[in-house]
Amino acid sequence: MDRRYFDWAATALPSETGLVTTPFGNPSSRHLEGRTARLALEAARSRCAKILGVQPKELYFTSGGTESNAIPLHSLLLRKNAAFLISAVEHPSVGENALILERMGIRLGYIGVEKDGRVSEKTLETALAGLPGTRFGAIMGVNNETGAVMDIPALVKVFRNRKGPPVHIHSDLVQALGKVPLDISRWDLDSASFSAHKIGGPRGIGLLWLRRTAQSLEVLGVGGGQEGGIRPGTENTSAACAMADCMEHFAEPRAVQAGYAAASQRWAALIRALRSLDRCTLIPEDRRDEDERFSPWILQAGFRGIPGEVMARALDDAGFAVSTGSACSSRSQKRPVLEAMGIKGDQSLEGIRISQGWSSSMGDIEKLIAAIGKILEVL
Amino acid sequence: MDRRYFDWAATALPSETGLVTTPFGNPSSRHLEGRTARLALEAARSRCAKILGVQPKELYFTSGGTESNAIPLHSLLLRKNAAFLISAVEHPSVGENALILERMGIRLGYIGVEKDGRVSEKTLETALAGLPGTRFGAIMGVNNETGAVMDIPALVKVFRNRKGPPVHIHSDLVQALGKVPLDISRWDLDSASFSAHKIGGPRGIGLLWLRRTAQSLEVLGVGGGQEGGIRPGTENTSAACAMADCMEHFAEPRAVQAGYAAASQRWAALIRALRSLDRCTLIPEDRRDEDERFSPWILQAGFRGIPGEVMARALDDAGFAVSTGSACSSRSQKRPVLEAMGIKGDQSLEGIRISQGWSSSMGDIEKLIAAIGKILEVL
Repeated sequence: MDRRYFDWAATALPSETGLVTTPFGNPSSRHLEGRTARLALEAARSRCAKILGVQPKELYFTSGGTESNAIPLHSLLLRKNAAFLISAVEHPSVGENALILERMGIRLGYIGVEKDGRVSEKTLETALAGLPGTRFGAIMGVNNETGAVMDIPALVKVFRNRKGPPVHIHSDLVQALGKVPLDISRWDLDSASFSAHKIGGPRGIGLLWLRRTAQSLEVLGVGGGQEGGIRPGTENTSAACAMADCMEHFAEPRAVQAGYAAASQRWAALIRALRSLDRCTLIPEDRRDEDERFSPWILQAGFRGIPGEVMARALDDAGFAVSTGSACSSRSQKRPVLEAMGIKGDQSLEGIRISQGWSSSMGDIEKLIAAIGKILEVL
Repeated sequence: MDRRYFDWAATALPSETGLVTTPFGNPSSRHLEGRTARLALEAARSRCAKILGVQPKELYFTSGGTESNAIPLHSLLLRKNAAFLISAVEHPSVGENALILERMGIRLGYIGVEKDGRVSEKTLETALAGLPGTRFGAIMGVNNETGAVMDIPALVKVFRNRKGPPVHIHSDLVQALGKVPLDISRWDLDSASFSAHKIGGPRGIGLLWLRRTAQSLEVLGVGGGQEGGIRPGTENTSAACAMADCMEHFAEPRAVQAGYAAASQRWAALIRALRSLDRCTLIPEDRRDEDERFSPWILQAGFRGIPGEVMARALDDAGFAVSTGSACSSRSQKRPVLEAMGIKGDQSLEGIRISQGWSSSMGDIEKLIAAIGKILEVL
């Protein structure tokens, strides 16, 4: 069956890069097999560090984005009197873990978003004023449902300019890596998360970047001391090497720039076509054809009178893979990200997410537009 | 260079089984790509369940043995007034996490071992008497440093025969799977851990078995609700399928029986040869050539006057990979497992671990014995 895949935000098409044979030894072993594996692992770490513009010793391989988010969050359990803020549109790996921490007695506050789904300096200031003693904050780089790009450097400044004890600022950059320009070495964050499978790499591998000054972070999950004590478990050398390959291929700054430009062009065509449809509402409504506030890889839109699930199902039947919310919350009937933007009830349930990747073509977009048109004739 | 690998307990040689192409979709996505991936994932789960003789819905894919051990342990943080016992010879993924829990106010007790490194009904009864209110216990199936096989069914009975609230009994079966006969469906445990890379599978994938009645377990690490809410993060379909392949190949009961018999024969030859060496001490000393108390895949032995690290290094130089403690504690200078057996100071530091696998041959063993003999002439 002829298929067109528009759910890259859930998982990317696997890249052929990274299918290399890596040494099998346990990198913690001291014999030749172990040392050889250690060299491969550390080379992978260095290559990832180079792409991100950070120090290799600041990067820890994890089992993926979810774990990279959980490690700094759970470390709050080992702090006394911690209070923390997260944005109202975080991925469930942040949002759900935050609820567990709150249940365990750690004060939690939310940073609201503007109608465009982005945290603003104003919403952050309001949240900070409402939660004295904040010691930790999490704001994602690119929202996984709307593509909203947060102005991380400006938001970090709001945190830093506040009087009081230092705040650990974490950013989930899973949907940002390889998609929008990043400069974590200048953003003054304390930690950030990355996942390989969103950029064509294998499942089960991700990165946690921890700024050197933040490395006193005490982690809850310990074990054999691997990854500097930050992430226990036998190191996944082959997946780490594959992640490094994909990062060099897709997340290198010039590659990101070129991909961004091409994606923007395709997205502009899609957005223009959708806006011309009477029953289609872009989410947010004022999203422009080319709009720096949003990632050109993700688009959220609703169709009046058609539940998102129904539209996604109709497109699936027509050969197009799109989703409603994130894959990670596909079992949920609610759309908290859209609700945080002030989109309520039925309207929030109409949203579908379309996300593209490097191999998406203008032809794919045109066929998608045609398919939506046909569906609207019958639904 | 001609190499002979005797560190299978750290990681197995990769099996060629399991190098299959699996659907790339996110199993949580509802479109065709997602549903296809979901089918592959659930087929892998069913195949693993069949090998273990349990229900598919009792198995959760995790990122590996360490995480499979951490999930039930960390769930203690969500219980009130929990107290827990672990054996004194657990893997660091249990032992180190236990120390964190203790620091967070959960009462921790240790179950001692006999001189042979095995928990006995007596040492367990003593530990239980010393920690009223025990609600959780962890005893591994096969010790990763000595190969000591615990009599899990008998030990579970001791827990169950005790008056008081029910105890959740967990067993780390990472070194047991595919190596010694297992029958978790009859052992009356509540949970157990498994890792793929110890049986030829990829890194980054493991299983947590949770008995259905134990599934009210509340987990600390949450997120997108994957794996029944027990283990968040995009499911690693390809690794799960590879794990199923390796389990069918190496952990199927008849395969285990055949492998066990062959391994015992090779090990008997090694043990006999080592016992004949004046400076060699088997650990424990009374380990017999064929001895049901120990896994025939792992052997611990010391050489008088030669630190284990020196012996391991000399063997490495001669082309043989062996280790001292576990790879997961290769940075540590201490040998807590041996100390728990009453082996103190310098003597505990003399121990090396030799571990074999399916492709180890009698010829490899003979060459290892010869190499040890030569090293003893000069050291």
